[in-house]
Amino acid sequence: MKKIIASLFFIGFSIVLSSQNELAKTYNLMPWPKQIEESNEAFLIDKNLSIAIHSLHDQARVRKAATKFLRRLSNRTGVFIDNGFPVETASASIEIHFDRNSDLTIHADESYSLIVKETKIKIHAKSDVGALRGLETLLQLVAHNETNYFFHGVAIDDAPRFVWRGLMIDAARHFQPIAVLKRNLDAMASVKLNVFHWHLTDDQGFRIESKVYPKLHELASDGLYYTQDQIKDIVAYAYDLGIRVIPEIDVPGHASAILTAYPEYGSKDNYEYSIERFSGVFDPTLNPTKESTYLFLDALFSEIAPLFPDDYFHIGGDENEGKHWNENKEIKVFKEKLNLKTNHDLQTYFNIRLEKILKKLDKKLMGWDEIMTPTMPTTAVIHSWRGENEGLPKGGSLISAAKKGYQTVLSNGYYIDRMLSVEHHYSVDPIGTIELSSEERKRILGGEATMWSELTTPLVIDSRIWPRTAAIAERFWSSKEVNNVDSMLKRLSDVNKKLEELGITHIKNRAVILRNINNNQDNTALETLSKLCEPLKMYSRNAGGTEYKTFSPFTMFADACVADAEYAVPFNKNVASLMTNATKDIENLIKNDLKKWSEIQEHFLKTDKNPNTKPLESLSKNLSSCSKLLLNALSTKKITQIDLDKLEFLLTRLEAPFLDTELAIVSALNQLSTYCEITFLVK
Amino acid sequence: MKKIIASLFFIGFSIVLSSQNELAKTYNLMPWPKQIEESNEAFLIDKNLSIAIHSLHDQARVRKAATKFLRRLSNRTGVFIDNGFPVETASASIEIHFDRNSDLTIHADESYSLIVKETKIKIHAKSDVGALRGLETLLQLVAHNETNYFFHGVAIDDAPRFVWRGLMIDAARHFQPIAVLKRNLDAMASVKLNVFHWHLTDDQGFRIESKVYPKLHELASDGLYYTQDQIKDIVAYAYDLGIRVIPEIDVPGHASAILTAYPEYGSKDNYEYSIERFSGVFDPTLNPTKESTYLFLDALFSEIAPLFPDDYFHIGGDENEGKHWNENKEIKVFKEKLNLKTNHDLQTYFNIRLEKILKKLDKKLMGWDEIMTPTMPTTAVIHSWRGENEGLPKGGSLISAAKKGYQTVLSNGYYIDRMLSVEHHYSVDPIGTIELSSEERKRILGGEATMWSELTTPLVIDSRIWPRTAAIAERFWSSKEVNNVDSMLKRLSDVNKKLEELGITHIKNRAVILRNINNNQDNTALETLSKLCEPLKMYSRNAGGTEYKTFSPFTMFADACVADAEYAVPFNKNVASLMTNATKDIENLIKNDLKKWSEIQEHFLKTDKNPNTKPLESLSKNLSSCSKLLLNALSTKKITQIDLDKLEFLLTRLEAPFLDTELAIVSALNQLSTYCEITFLVK
Repeated sequence: MKKIIASLFFIGFSIVLSSQNELAKTYNLMPWPKQIEESNEAFLIDKNLSIAIHSLHDQARVRKAATKFLRRLSNRTGVFIDNGFPVETASASIEIHFDRNSDLTIHADESYSLIVKETKIKIHAKSDVGALRGLETLLQLVAHNETNYFFHGVAIDDAPRFVWRGLMIDAARHFQPIAVLKRNLDAMASVKLNVFHWHLTDDQGFRIESKVYPKLHELASDGLYYTQDQIKDIVAYAYDLGIRVIPEIDVPGHASAILTAYPEYGSKDNYEYSIERFSGVFDPTLNPTKESTYLFLDALFSEIAPLFPDDYFHIGGDENEGKHWNENKEIKVFKEKLNLKTNHDLQTYFNIRLEKILKKLDKKLMGWDEIMTPTMPTTAVIHSWRGENEGLPKGGSLISAAKKGYQTVLSNGYYIDRMLSVEHHYSVDPIGTIELSSEERKRILGGEATMWSELTTPLVIDSRIWPRTAAIAERFWSSKEVNNVDSMLKRLSDVNKKLEELGITHIKNRAVILRNINNNQDNTALETLSKLCEPLKMYSRNAGGTEYKTFSPFTMFADACVADAEYAVPFNKNVASLMTNATKDIENLIKNDLKKWSEIQEHFLKTDKNPNTKPLESLSKNLSSCSKLLLNALSTKKITQIDLDKLEFLLTRLEAPFLDTELAIVSALNQLSTYCEITFLVK
Repeated sequence: MKKIIASLFFIGFSIVLSSQNELAKTYNLMPWPKQIEESNEAFLIDKNLSIAIHSLHDQARVRKAATKFLRRLSNRTGVFIDNGFPVETASASIEIHFDRNSDLTIHADESYSLIVKETKIKIHAKSDVGALRGLETLLQLVAHNETNYFFHGVAIDDAPRFVWRGLMIDAARHFQPIAVLKRNLDAMASVKLNVFHWHLTDDQGFRIESKVYPKLHELASDGLYYTQDQIKDIVAYAYDLGIRVIPEIDVPGHASAILTAYPEYGSKDNYEYSIERFSGVFDPTLNPTKESTYLFLDALFSEIAPLFPDDYFHIGGDENEGKHWNENKEIKVFKEKLNLKTNHDLQTYFNIRLEKILKKLDKKLMGWDEIMTPTMPTTAVIHSWRGENEGLPKGGSLISAAKKGYQTVLSNGYYIDRMLSVEHHYSVDPIGTIELSSEERKRILGGEATMWSELTTPLVIDSRIWPRTAAIAERFWSSKEVNNVDSMLKRLSDVNKKLEELGITHIKNRAVILRNINNNQDNTALETLSKLCEPLKMYSRNAGGTEYKTFSPFTMFADACVADAEYAVPFNKNVASLMTNATKDIENLIKNDLKKWSEIQEHFLKTDKNPNTKPLESLSKNLSSCSKLLLNALSTKKITQIDLDKLEFLLTRLEAPFLDTELAIVSALNQLSTYCEITFLVK
C-alpha cells in the first residue's frame, strides 16, 4: 500500500502488468474481475469528489446507486463530501457512462470498465446495471494512509461468467422481515449477485397476502406474511440494485400451510391439516387429480405472478413422497385411467398443467430437479439441488439437465444452511472438468446459494449467509481459474468487515446473543469459545427435524457460532504447517493461541452461571487444561506419559458436541498431542 | 436472589411488606409500579408454561402480545416452551383477564394487577392494553439460578400517573425507516410509553406520500418517505402495542420542503425554495394571507388525517420568525386590514383557520407552545418545549397553559437530542412543587421525550433514545416520589441490556462504528475512549447548524459515544466519594480504573492509524500519561511539584473537545489532582 501512497500525486499512468494472484495481495476485490491492471496513481477522496451520470437513457437506477455510493463512501471514510447527490456538471470527478437500461433478463449485459486516474474516474458500461457493478468495484478500491483516503489507480475490464448468480432465502420456515431482505439485497449487490430467489411458501407458512384466497395468509402464516405492497416494494428495491426476484410457491408437496387454509385441495379427506412446527419432509400434498386444484392454482398464480416482473416462476416440486396419494383411492383410479404408472408420472402430469397456467401468465416454469422426468418438456428450468453425494452420476442433475436440453441452475454444493466451510463451497465449480457442447454450456445459467431457514431466524440469518456467500458469488462471477483459497480467504476477510456498512448483522448480532446468554457479564470466555466452536454441520443439529420447533429459541450458544470459526481456521492451518515443517515462528503462533485458551477457564470462573452457560463449564475447563498441557510441552520440549494420558482423556471429552456445536480445533489438538508424543516424550 | 431461589418450591404466599426502595434492590422494574408486595414464592419457567386469555371481548391485541411474550421469554431464557401460542384450556399457568378493549384515547385505562404464585400467574386489567402493560412487568420479573429460570413471586397493583407518555421521533431531518420505528415502538411498549409523536415534515424533508399533492414526496423527500400503506402499517403496529400515533405536519414555518414542491404557497415571491441540508431555523414560511394556502392545507390534512385514527393532530407552529412575512408587502397590507398587529397575531389567525379545518376532520389541534397567544382558543393543546431556561416564569409554558385552560404536554426538560445525562432528565418533574387546582392538574396530560434528528441517523438513533428514555418513561408513569437516582441507575442498567432483545441497536451499533473507524483492528483503546467520552452537549456539536449537512457522515467517533459515558459515571462518583470520605475500597476502585486508562496508549500504538483515528492520538496519550501520574501518586502516597505541573499541563489538554466529544472524567481528574496535591505533595 505504502508504495502507492508515496506516488499519490505523481503524474502519468504507467501500467504495470502483474499476475492476478500477485494483484490480489493488494486489492481486496471480490468477485475478482476479469481483467485488472494497476497504475502508480491514486485518486484522493476529499470534499470535492463528485459524480456525474452521462446517458441519454433513464438515469433513475444509476442516480439512486450513485447517491448510495456517496453515503457509503462518506460514512466509511468520514469525508464530508460537498455534493451529496450526483451533479449535472461535466467536470465531475467520477463519470458514469452507459448506453441503455437493463431489462433484467438472463440476456442482460452486466459488463463494465473502470478506470481510476489521479483526478478522474470513469465507469463505462453497456447497461445501467453494468454501471452499478462498476460502482461496487470502485468501493472495494478504497484505501488509506494516516492522513488521507484514496482510490487505488487501476484499469479494470469486467464481465460475469454466469448470467444467473443467486441467493435463495427461505422466508417460510422462519419469516424474514422486509428489513432483513433489504439489507441482504444490498449485500448481494455489493458482491454482484443478481437473482433473489424468494422461497415464500412451505409446510411452516404461506407468506404472501392473497386477496383471492385470503385464508392463505389469515390462517396459514401466524400473521407473518408479506403484503402485496411489501412484495412490490422488495421487487422495486431489488430492481434498483439490478437484482431479479424469482418467487417460489412450493407445490404439490410442502403444502401443509396451503392445506391448513384450504383443506379441500388436499389429497387426503378428513385430514386435520395444520401449520407445521417441526422440520423435515411431510405428507400433506395437493391433489393433482381434481380440476378444482388447478382452478385454485390458476387463480392464485394469476394473482401472484404479476407482482413479479421476472420471466421465471419457481414451483418447487421437491420432496413429494406421494404418501397421501397412495392412500387415496380416487387418485389411484385416476392414475390408472391416465396410464400414469408412478407418482413421478402423476407429478409430471401436475407440472405440465402448471406449465400451461404459467405460460398463459408469460412465465417460465422452474422447479427443483425432481421435476426432471422423462416426459417433462424442456421448456422447464431445472434447479439442481442433488449431485454426486445424493447418488447421482458425475455432474449431478445439473449436467444431466443441460445435456437433456433444459436450462438449469446449480444449488448442489451451495447449501449454506449446512454450515460447511467456505472453502468447501468455493471449491464447487458448476461445470468442473466436464466437457460440454456450446449449446449445453449455454443452458447452464449459473447457480444459487440456498439459505434454508429451519434453524435460521432474522437474528442469525446474516451470519449464516455471510461471508460465505461472497465467495460463492465469486465462483459465479469470476473465471474458473480464480480458485486460490488463500487469496479468497484474505479478500473475504476484508469483504466480511465491509458488509457491516450495509447493515448486515453477522458480526454484531453474535455479540448480542452472547450478552444475552451471559446476562451481560464479562464475555471474554464465551466470546473465545464462540470463535472456536462451529454449529453442528449438515442436519445433525436438528436430528429428525424434531429437536427444534419453529418457535424454539435460536438465541443460544450455537447461534452465536458460525462456520469457519474465526480462531480455529488459522490455528488448524498453523498446526498442519507444524506437522510438515516445524519452524519457530509457527510454533510461537501456536503457543500464543494455546496461552489464550489456557486462560479461558479463569475468565469463565469469574462469571455467575445460568442454565445457558453452566453446560459450557466442562468445555471451558477441559480446553483450558488441554491447552496448558500442550503449551507446557511445547515450551519445555518435554512431555510425560502421565500428561499424555491426561491429554488423551481431555481430548476425548472435547470431541463430544457441546450445546449443538463442535470444537473446531479438536482434530488439530489431537495432531498436536501426537506431535508432542513423538517429539517430546520423556521415556 | 438466593433467598428466593431457596424457597422455589415452598407453598404459601406470605406477603412481606418492605419499603419500595428496599424492593427496588431486588426487582429491576422500570417504570416502578404503584404498589408491589413480594412473596417467598417463585414460578418456575419450563416447557409447560402456557398462557390463556379470558375475555368476552376482542382478544387480538392480547393474543399478539402474549405470542411476542412467549418468544421473548423463550429467547431470553433458552427454555423450549411447548405451546408457542396462547392456549384455549382453562388450566394454563398464566391467565390474562380483561374487561374491555381500549379505545386508545387519553381516557383509556391502563391499570392492571399481576400476581405471581408458585404455579399460577394472573393478570387482571380493565382494558386489553392494561393487560399488555402487565405482561411487560412480568417480563421484568424473570430471574435465574444456575439451573433454572423463574419469575419472582409478587403481587403488583399498577396504574400510570400521566395519561400521555410519549416519544417524539423526528423523521424529517433524517429519515428513519420502518424497521427503526417498529423496534422503537416495541421498546416504548416495554417501558409503558403510550404515545408515538411522529415529526413527519420539516425544512429537510416531507416524509409522507401524498396522492393529492404528489410533488411533496416526489420533489421534497430525496426519495425517503413513508408510503400511505407504510403509515397504516406503523399505526396498526402501534395500535397492537397500545400506543397512539400523533402525526406532526409542521406549519407555517419549517416549510422549506413543502415550498420546494409547491412554492406558490410561500410568503416570498420568486424565492428559490430547496430542501434544506443544514440545521437551524430557516425563513421559508407558508403564506397565511392567501386563501389558496388554506385550500392546500385543507386538502392535504383531509388526505393525511384519516391515516391516523388518533384524536390529536400536531401542526408544529414553532420557530416562525416571520422574516419572509415582513418582506412581503401584501402580507403587511393583510395584517393592517385585519388589525393583526404582530406576526404572532397573524400566526394565531393562521392557527385558528387550521383548527377549523382539523375540527371538520374530527381532530384536536396540538402545537408547540408558540401557538399559545392571547386569542388562541383553549381547545388547542399546548406542547410545552420552553421553560425557565428559555426565560419563562417558573413552570414554563406548561403550567401557564394549564392555568389558562389549555390541555398541555411537557417536552421541556426531555430534549434527549441535547445529550444531557439521564439524571438530568429524570429530575424534571412536569409539575414539581407547583400548586394546581384539580382542574388545572387534569389539563397536564403528561410529557414527551423528543428525539430531534439533526445529528441522528438510523445507525445511531437507538443510542440517542435509549436507555435515557426508559428513565423518562418512569417519570411519566410512576409516582413523583419514585425519584431515587441510584435506584433508577441500577434498574436502568438492567433495562438497558434487555432492550437488545427487542432489536434496539444502542449497544451493538456503537461497536460497528468503532470497527469501521478502526478498520477492524484491535479496538481496546477506542472502545475504552468511547466509554469515557460523551458527544458535545446542547447544540455545540453542530455550531450554527452548518458543521453537518444532512448527508454528512454520522459514523465517526462522536457517534460511537453516548450520554452518561459508561466508565465515566462510576468513576466520577467514586472520585466525589473520595473527596468527602477517602476509604481504601474507593481508592482501590479508582486505582483500578486509572491502571486501565494508563494502558490505553499502549493499545492505541499497536494499531495502524487512519484519518479518523489519528486525531485521537493526543487524547489517548495524554489520558494515559495523566492516569499514570495519578496512579503513581495514589500508590506511593507521594507526588512531586514537577508531576503536578505535568498533570496540570495534561489536564488542560484533556479539557479541549476531541472530534466533537468531551472527556467526561476531566473534572474528576482535576479533583483527583487537587486531592493528590493536598494529600501527597512532597515539599
